Amino acid sequence: MDFVSRLLAREVLAGARLLRWIDDGLPEARETLKRLYPHAGRAMILGITGNPGSGKSTLTDQLIRRFRARGKTVAVVAVDPSSPFSGGAILGDRIRMQDHALDEGVFIRSFATRGHLGGLTNTTTDVVHALDAMGWEVVLIETVGVGQDEVEVQRLAHTTLVLMTPGMGDEIQAIKAGILEIADVFVVNKADREGADRTVRELEHMLDLGRGVRPTLAELMHHGGKVALAAAEEERVAPEAWVPRIVKTVAFRGEGIDGLMEAIDAHRAEYLRASQEPDFQRARLRQEFLEIYRRTLIARGWSYLMSEDHLGRIVDKMRTRVRDPYSLADEAVADLGARPPAPG
Amino acid sequence: MDFVSRLLAREVLAGARLLRWIDDGLPEARETLKRLYPHAGRAMILGITGNPGSGKSTLTDQLIRRFRARGKTVAVVAVDPSSPFSGGAILGDRIRMQDHALDEGVFIRSFATRGHLGGLTNTTTDVVHALDAMGWEVVLIETVGVGQDEVEVQRLAHTTLVLMTPGMGDEIQAIKAGILEIADVFVVNKADREGADRTVRELEHMLDLGRGVRPTLAELMHHGGKVALAAAEEERVAPEAWVPRIVKTVAFRGEGIDGLMEAIDAHRAEYLRASQEPDFQRARLRQEFLEIYRRTLIARGWSYLMSEDHLGRIVDKMRTRVRDPYSLADEAVADLGARPPAPG
Repeated sequence: MDFVSRLLAREVLAGARLLRWIDDGLPEARETLKRLYPHAGRAMILGITGNPGSGKSTLTDQLIRRFRARGKTVAVVAVDPSSPFSGGAILGDRIRMQDHALDEGVFIRSFATRGHLGGLTNTTTDVVHALDAMGWEVVLIETVGVGQDEVEVQRLAHTTLVLMTPGMGDEIQAIKAGILEIADVFVVNKADREGADRTVRELEHMLDLGRGVRPTLAELMHHGGKVALAAAEEERVAPEAWVPRIVKTVAFRGEGIDGLMEAIDAHRAEYLRASQEPDFQRARLRQEFLEIYRRTLIARGWSYLMSEDHLGRIVDKMRTRVRDPYSLADEAVADLGARPPAPG
Repeated sequence: MDFVSRLLAREVLAGARLLRWIDDGLPEARETLKRLYPHAGRAMILGITGNPGSGKSTLTDQLIRRFRARGKTVAVVAVDPSSPFSGGAILGDRIRMQDHALDEGVFIRSFATRGHLGGLTNTTTDVVHALDAMGWEVVLIETVGVGQDEVEVQRLAHTTLVLMTPGMGDEIQAIKAGILEIADVFVVNKADREGADRTVRELEHMLDLGRGVRPTLAELMHHGGKVALAAAEEERVAPEAWVPRIVKTVAFRGEGIDGLMEAIDAHRAEYLRASQEPDFQRARLRQEFLEIYRRTLIARGWSYLMSEDHLGRIVDKMRTRVRDPYSLADEAVADLGARPPAPG
């Protein structure tokens, strides 16, 4: 059986190898993703984000149980920015895997983040596409909701849960706009603690204020064309009719999970309804393409500069100040397009 | 006199027009920058960053006075992320301009930031290159030191001052690594307040801990090639021998400014010494090129997608799932290189 067939049969070792290839940025990863693509697009992609200590892992475990009880296979992609090396992430995997170690319908993998600029997104998007294509029915993306990178990753999700805990009162105002933009369901976890109702009220108030603020893709694209590629990528394509819900849970005791699943199901129904619209489908695909295209441009651009000492020769031309970097950049882009792409 | 000659004569109206072109992302801006480039590279670029309320504007005013007293012309580029629209920035300009309104040797311009992804850098880098070419002898970049964007902008500066205030004690630990990486001189402003010495000691301690942590360009470039373009751009090219200094000031009373100027001069001398090295020159130029190159790739990539409905046709191909976005992205990059660049 060839590698892609083994992946499509959800063979654990093949899957682990592909994810390692993706994580290492090998050309084999991209070639495999090309062949997997026709099989992707069936998974339900669920995002969970929240500050450290908000109970994400506990809630994730609860959701795994619920989806397993429904007979769904579940893959978890946990992005852990606190660990620059994979050692910590692997340990975390082991601890979290214990409950699901014997269940072939569950796959959990943690990824450490790397670098500021797009390092995180690079691997996570491809990992999610791969797991989707391999036939995992629910793909759960868990992030710590702090940075721009995390927001980018959560934009992939069909439904995103944002976790809060009581007593975050004053902090709610400080929550980044990006996090609010992606929230379909707010989960006030540890709701047995004092202040849970206040947190709910503050969220309700904030949602009232924020309604209608989200710019449309058309508005973003009109922004002088300058940040257009970034803006079109940034826009989250989500059902317009959905009003974010607020759910209280005590995840470690399993309380409120029924209500949370109900909210998830309701959003899923709304998402699937919206997905019938050709405009909605096109907007999702456009975003998917733009993210891959941007990475392709940068990767091709970089490998061009590194080949045949192009970068060194460009810098030498700049040293004399006879040639300017704007014209040199134009020429490099024209030249790289004229060459066959390197494998990957 | 043609437009470029008027710019080189530092004509105020011509300069204002070019900055507006840059801010609006017009193709004329890029064509002008190409012609200005041979004249750039002479200015001293000084960065000032610090939280709101740390006294950046007051300190900037003090520095303008000192450089003017030395007979230097000074241009200030203030990047104000708090204002999404330029209204606020323009008002700020007026207030700040009052003291220098009649001085033709001072130019102050505020820019509002836009968008998350590179919107800020796009204009600021070009603005600084333009002011440099126009013959402004000191170009001062003022940012609020909070985000990745601000760090990117400050990387342009030859010498960067990071402002602190007493009582930030606990927050120092929370300061982003990126801010520390760019600091040549720490300024503890409002040093008449309680806790100034403690802040100084904490900074000293932090500098002791952090020494030698900064990765080299070679290390970054080896990072699997994945984040290489980003990493090479991110690396700040700075004199290796320099040990960051800590200076106390009370800017609104003009106290400590002598000591600060001394630290700035010392760093300047070190910077100019390092600049004699061909490797250092090449590293600076490489970074300058990479930043422009990345923007060129994205801009060319975007205008390609928008022309002849390329993006629409790509999305249609994806809808059938017969074509995958990875191959379509490869083809688009090859195709855009085969076309003549649009003007700008």
